[in-house]
Amino acid sequence: MRVIFNEEMRQVADDMDRIAGAVSQAIKTSGKALLEPNLDAAQEVIDGDQAIDQLEGSIIDQCVRLLAKQNPVATDLRVIVSTLRLAATFERMGDLSRHIAEAVRRAYPDPPLPPEAHDLFGRMQDFLNQMSDRLVAMLSDRDTKVAEQIIIDDDQLDQLHQQTFDLALSDEWTGSKQQMIDLVLLARFMERIGDHGVSAARRVVYIVSGFDPTKDPKDLEDID
Amino acid sequence: MRVIFNEEMRQVADDMDRIAGAVSQAIKTSGKALLEPNLDAAQEVIDGDQAIDQLEGSIIDQCVRLLAKQNPVATDLRVIVSTLRLAATFERMGDLSRHIAEAVRRAYPDPPLPPEAHDLFGRMQDFLNQMSDRLVAMLSDRDTKVAEQIIIDDDQLDQLHQQTFDLALSDEWTGSKQQMIDLVLLARFMERIGDHGVSAARRVVYIVSGFDPTKDPKDLEDID
Repeated sequence: MRVIFNEEMRQVADDMDRIAGAVSQAIKTSGKALLEPNLDAAQEVIDGDQAIDQLEGSIIDQCVRLLAKQNPVATDLRVIVSTLRLAATFERMGDLSRHIAEAVRRAYPDPPLPPEAHDLFGRMQDFLNQMSDRLVAMLSDRDTKVAEQIIIDDDQLDQLHQQTFDLALSDEWTGSKQQMIDLVLLARFMERIGDHGVSAARRVVYIVSGFDPTKDPKDLEDID
Repeated sequence: MRVIFNEEMRQVADDMDRIAGAVSQAIKTSGKALLEPNLDAAQEVIDGDQAIDQLEGSIIDQCVRLLAKQNPVATDLRVIVSTLRLAATFERMGDLSRHIAEAVRRAYPDPPLPPEAHDLFGRMQDFLNQMSDRLVAMLSDRDTKVAEQIIIDDDQLDQLHQQTFDLALSDEWTGSKQQMIDLVLLARFMERIGDHGVSAARRVVYIVSGFDPTKDPKDLEDID
């Protein structure tokens, strides 16, 4: 993220790259845990969450110290505040990935979902994996156009989310009650990861360019 | 909240009281919407959410302006950052209350939950109502002991949350598939409101006293 931040924010930039990478990894591995299903992958995500939390803590500490420096020629304060919120958004995405992994682990040795749900959840995971790659890319190449694509694709993710409910209510559904409960939870976790991804994309656009072309600037401070 | 903040933060204090009051109202009215059920109450919560979002936006704008003032004798920057996060937490509690109301409205004219779920959800709502009152009280009387009670009671809320799953999986369950889906969602929304309440309580303790006796200070910057 050094291409976006000035020298003063260099350490924060490096930590932001680390947290984005760790969260991208957590999202992809939780998808692997869910869809194969794979217990080792689930445990990997659960074990990896602490590092994400620590990175967030470190980034926030550094942002607060920068705010305290009171140097009028320094980084725009709104950028520092947005960075703080972006780190928190990443941390929440990591938590949601961990919740997915925990659901897989709880269900074990049963599969968390019945076979007829696989296609739908596979497609949702494809969106999340693509979104993760785009977010990581945005931090290193300042490509704010990518943000528009993340926002557009999230609508499709929301539609797939709605379809999981239709599936559970249909005659096609062969799952147990526990699997229905897990379907609702897992679909929600994934939908929330997507929402946070949109939030993160908007914040990166704001940090890079100083504005969000799709929203009232005040709304940029929304934490989802 | 003027008893907690200095003169410089007076406007922020008043807005924080307003947002806490509006969120407390939203939590209680969403409970009424769910348990009676009551469509007008649901609509009231849905309509009232915009005001909460606007208050959060205003509080954040003011905090950023205060951060920009760079006055070394002014409010501790960590307090300003914590206030920003507290406002975001309240806003999220408002959103979750709106999600509860939207589920009630979607289910109408069917009740969102079958009769056997009423007792459990009623008890969960009692906890949320009590927590709301305590949060509002904390902001006006600096009573940080109340925070401990909020934290303890949240464990009980989590237990009730687990019991909703047991109920859905039991022979006692008479609900439709849609009602099972709504049970999982509603229980999660309520559990998340409780989690955010704990977060909010910890932040108020930090703002009042400068420390959280139960956690590493770095973790205080967690946004849930």
